[in-house]
Amino acid sequence: MISAAALQELRAIVGRDNFLDSDADKLLYSYDATPMLRQQPDAVLIPRSAETVSKIMRLANEARFAVVPRGSGSGLSGGSVPVKDSVVLLFPPMKTILEIDEENFTTTVEPGVITATLQKEVEARGLFYPPDPGSATISTIGGNVAENAGGLRGLKYGVTKNYVLALDVVLPSGELVSIGTRSIKDVQGLNLKDVFIGSEGALGIFTKITLRLLPKPDASKVILIYVESLSMVGAFVSEIARARIVPAMFEFLDHTTIRAVEGYAHIGLPTTIDALLLIELDGHPAVVEDDAAKVFEIAKKLGASFIKAAETDAEAARLKQARKSAFSALARLKPTTILEDASVPRSALPEMLEMVQHEAKRQNLLVGNFGHLGDGNLHPTCLISERDKTDVHRSELFFEKVFEMAIALGGTITGEHGTGLAKKRFLDMAAGNAQVELMRQFKATLDPNNVLNPTKMFDAATFFKSKCERRAPQSFPPIT
Amino acid sequence: MISAAALQELRAIVGRDNFLDSDADKLLYSYDATPMLRQQPDAVLIPRSAETVSKIMRLANEARFAVVPRGSGSGLSGGSVPVKDSVVLLFPPMKTILEIDEENFTTTVEPGVITATLQKEVEARGLFYPPDPGSATISTIGGNVAENAGGLRGLKYGVTKNYVLALDVVLPSGELVSIGTRSIKDVQGLNLKDVFIGSEGALGIFTKITLRLLPKPDASKVILIYVESLSMVGAFVSEIARARIVPAMFEFLDHTTIRAVEGYAHIGLPTTIDALLLIELDGHPAVVEDDAAKVFEIAKKLGASFIKAAETDAEAARLKQARKSAFSALARLKPTTILEDASVPRSALPEMLEMVQHEAKRQNLLVGNFGHLGDGNLHPTCLISERDKTDVHRSELFFEKVFEMAIALGGTITGEHGTGLAKKRFLDMAAGNAQVELMRQFKATLDPNNVLNPTKMFDAATFFKSKCERRAPQSFPPIT
Repeated sequence: MISAAALQELRAIVGRDNFLDSDADKLLYSYDATPMLRQQPDAVLIPRSAETVSKIMRLANEARFAVVPRGSGSGLSGGSVPVKDSVVLLFPPMKTILEIDEENFTTTVEPGVITATLQKEVEARGLFYPPDPGSATISTIGGNVAENAGGLRGLKYGVTKNYVLALDVVLPSGELVSIGTRSIKDVQGLNLKDVFIGSEGALGIFTKITLRLLPKPDASKVILIYVESLSMVGAFVSEIARARIVPAMFEFLDHTTIRAVEGYAHIGLPTTIDALLLIELDGHPAVVEDDAAKVFEIAKKLGASFIKAAETDAEAARLKQARKSAFSALARLKPTTILEDASVPRSALPEMLEMVQHEAKRQNLLVGNFGHLGDGNLHPTCLISERDKTDVHRSELFFEKVFEMAIALGGTITGEHGTGLAKKRFLDMAAGNAQVELMRQFKATLDPNNVLNPTKMFDAATFFKSKCERRAPQSFPPIT
Repeated sequence: MISAAALQELRAIVGRDNFLDSDADKLLYSYDATPMLRQQPDAVLIPRSAETVSKIMRLANEARFAVVPRGSGSGLSGGSVPVKDSVVLLFPPMKTILEIDEENFTTTVEPGVITATLQKEVEARGLFYPPDPGSATISTIGGNVAENAGGLRGLKYGVTKNYVLALDVVLPSGELVSIGTRSIKDVQGLNLKDVFIGSEGALGIFTKITLRLLPKPDASKVILIYVESLSMVGAFVSEIARARIVPAMFEFLDHTTIRAVEGYAHIGLPTTIDALLLIELDGHPAVVEDDAAKVFEIAKKLGASFIKAAETDAEAARLKQARKSAFSALARLKPTTILEDASVPRSALPEMLEMVQHEAKRQNLLVGNFGHLGDGNLHPTCLISERDKTDVHRSELFFEKVFEMAIALGGTITGEHGTGLAKKRFLDMAAGNAQVELMRQFKATLDPNNVLNPTKMFDAATFFKSKCERRAPQSFPPIT
């Protein structure tokens, strides 16, 4: 329990209206979108300025309580789940778009701005903020930066990290630093900025964010393809790469996910096919036309049973929305939805897709699989009831295999959701003790009292004393 | 002096043939491409494997000598200039391209591979490694990663950082860690990879590098434009941005640089104009045609005196080569060439260009200016004789103003060359004490004995006790 005196002081810092500690509030903020993780905070605070955040952090170091920053709580690794003796800081009310600079293609925002709101605002000016996490309609930019959010456009446009120019950060000590500049190229001193991006709220709290924008693509086309067998998906990925096409979006839904989406959205998807591909091409109209023709050719060559380009913007939007509803649609099938994001180099997708299916059967689990083919980022989603301990155990065994396989194939245990609480026990296996120890040292350097979002990603002390070597990098024959 | 015993041990570690300590060798490696910085090392070593590098670092910690890694020595901030009691590690012999993966668009290389060699190899396979530092024909990939090299294609394609997927790093302690994966999306644990990129050889030594590639653009066009007055350059940049054109290259040469280049390359440039613009458009042929038409329209509207698209690949290559020869051409005019790389948001270019010209006049200095307009990255180049102390002093005053102005305009003291020794005295002013102190802490965490490339970027201890606040971020009116 945080002491009554400290809570009293916190109330004075944020003001009475911004201090929430009713049972309902504490319950409401005891979880995020990650299943099976709950912990009530001692209070929920709404800071309205960097200075307030700074004061809270200084007090946290004095009185030794934990601070857990939170955007919209849409994270899927438990990054914003409270810890013991903690206060939650709510950022959605800090939601002003401070500037959209049309000359320099930049925007400066407060952390609570909703991703889709920013996208809409900049698009109205002919500009484009590409990162597009599945949760864009509810996620905040601050949360996106904290998790280095990816999304549907990762292959062509990169992830959040590629768009962050500058950050105002409150350090765990309470000190406020401005990192980065408005220059696109900037190498002064060490690159601290990028270590804060994706630090899952554990190295600093963002109070202002400057992002880079691109010109909005002139045209786009969404193509829907039905595939009779899962094994054809890998061939499709290869052919698209061989044709040197870089789709803006290259999504895949498996049989289970298609059925769930159709049951949810009723858009007329056939519920008998093995897989569905959704490809978006964007850019100059001529590029879109040429690439679309190539995609049609590939589909024909590989014997896809159905291929169709969306005829209207509304139809394209509906298809994209259907894809984005995959999580919600699957979530309706069972009480508990465990959605993961292991990624592999795309050449390893056939192996990975088959393995997911095989292990799901072996564990007798209901698993939907979907994800971003272009960047090899899959979302195997396990549907269980957390009250059924056998179910839970089998899902653990399933995901262990998934992560082991991702690592073995040169991939990662998390492409875009972060490590958080959900995947911390796999981090040593994925990164090796030596690297995790380095992470721990960086965290300790910045947060010696371990007050900022502690226990996320890794623990402050080394618990696993056994040497965990990262899988030795493959050796390749030299090119002659 | 490093002890004879330690040198003896080093010779045993690398083998006699890889241990150079003749006076000629020590002289040869006492400087890099940065003017006025020289220090002889005690020996020059050629390591041929990560294990050898690791052994050298372990000995450095025991015997307390400094280790300075070096690619081709083409750096312009003194990053590879030896320090007192140091050995230089030469990486050019570790130059194997280990793999080009055409399915996943990746390549894995040893650090000594020459940038242009890699570019050529991947282009032969229809792939593309975009980062293109001016020194690409001699610089190494290891050096590019250490400096987070930028180059001519920064605006459209980003910098080296945007292409590094994975790194094998020997830490200052000698420990070898593999960071990153072959997945494009990867957020497991803290993002350590990006803090090593651009760490100027002071946080770790790269022994293997995996890079992301893109498909090679189908077409390109190089357009040459003559501009009668410097003030028109800013207008050009605005119009290009307004037309939502993102050139692959958008270069500028001022009057002095044009004359120098013409005197060097004899390609028929007029020596009377105030500025020359060189724009490269690339991508799908239709995009290139459309954007070229827009560029011609803008040039006409603004009253450019000459505009011409290169008619053949050879002509385009000749023009690009002329631009790339700017440094060498200017260097012929005086014994000492100080080439800097302050950057500003592009809307601030008119102010910055005028200021450079004004200050050069005020200090009575011969200054050529050129650079990358799209990303606001300028290369004001001061031509003096280092033997003339008045010249040197005036050049210092000149660059002080340049850096102050870049910071005031929201820019950076270094867009792509790094801080090194050349700009370390400006780092506090640019980043503020708090941020530099953080950099210092990260360095001390990784390198407690300060043996790896010490004194670069900043000193291990705080020398400037005066509080140096970073310029307060601008406040913007909210968008209503």
